[in-house]
Amino acid sequence: MPVEDFLAQVRFDGAGLVPCIVQEESTGLVLMMAWMNEESLKLTLETGSTWFWSRSRSELWHKGATSGNTQRLIELRFDCDADTLLALVEAAGPACHTGAHSCFFRSVG
Amino acid sequence: MPVEDFLAQVRFDGAGLVPCIVQEESTGLVLMMAWMNEESLKLTLETGSTWFWSRSRSELWHKGATSGNTQRLIELRFDCDADTLLALVEAAGPACHTGAHSCFFRSVG
Repeated sequence: MPVEDFLAQVRFDGAGLVPCIVQEESTGLVLMMAWMNEESLKLTLETGSTWFWSRSRSELWHKGATSGNTQRLIELRFDCDADTLLALVEAAGPACHTGAHSCFFRSVG
Repeated sequence: MPVEDFLAQVRFDGAGLVPCIVQEESTGLVLMMAWMNEESLKLTLETGSTWFWSRSRSELWHKGATSGNTQRLIELRFDCDADTLLALVEAAGPACHTGAHSCFFRSVG
């Protein structure tokens, strides 16, 4: 779908945010989930590198800007309701601030 | 992590919900993202089949109860902030109400 049509369809929530699942394209591992506002979504599409909105710091966040662990966007998918995004990426390093490759390193039971 | 410890750690949002990414274990495909409240999370762990909270209908929702396309829980993971869940499942049929195998069947650009 053309970018302009997509941007007109995305359903941001009441806070102007949409959740974005980040999946490593080469391995299929789900690396993290973070939030995008319209500006970070446009930056992600324009630069080919993931940008998010940090809800805790209330600021735009270029993933990897300080750590070097950027994520190159390979494909951006969106779901049937257009209220959740799925970014397929190539990761330059660990996704998690703990140093783990994926933020989902713990399991229940 | 033991279930009791996990339930004490999960960080539900202001509406009492936590996003749950559903991934097909055998293929690595991300099938859908939906929301769980504490009750649906407990039901999922107790029954081994995914339950969610429908925000549009304001009711508990046993995935596949009407369509037959249930999801058997293989493993439940959670992220570093304990505010996002990742359910690895075996899907009995399509995840999407459109009949698509995954809800993420469209892409941008």
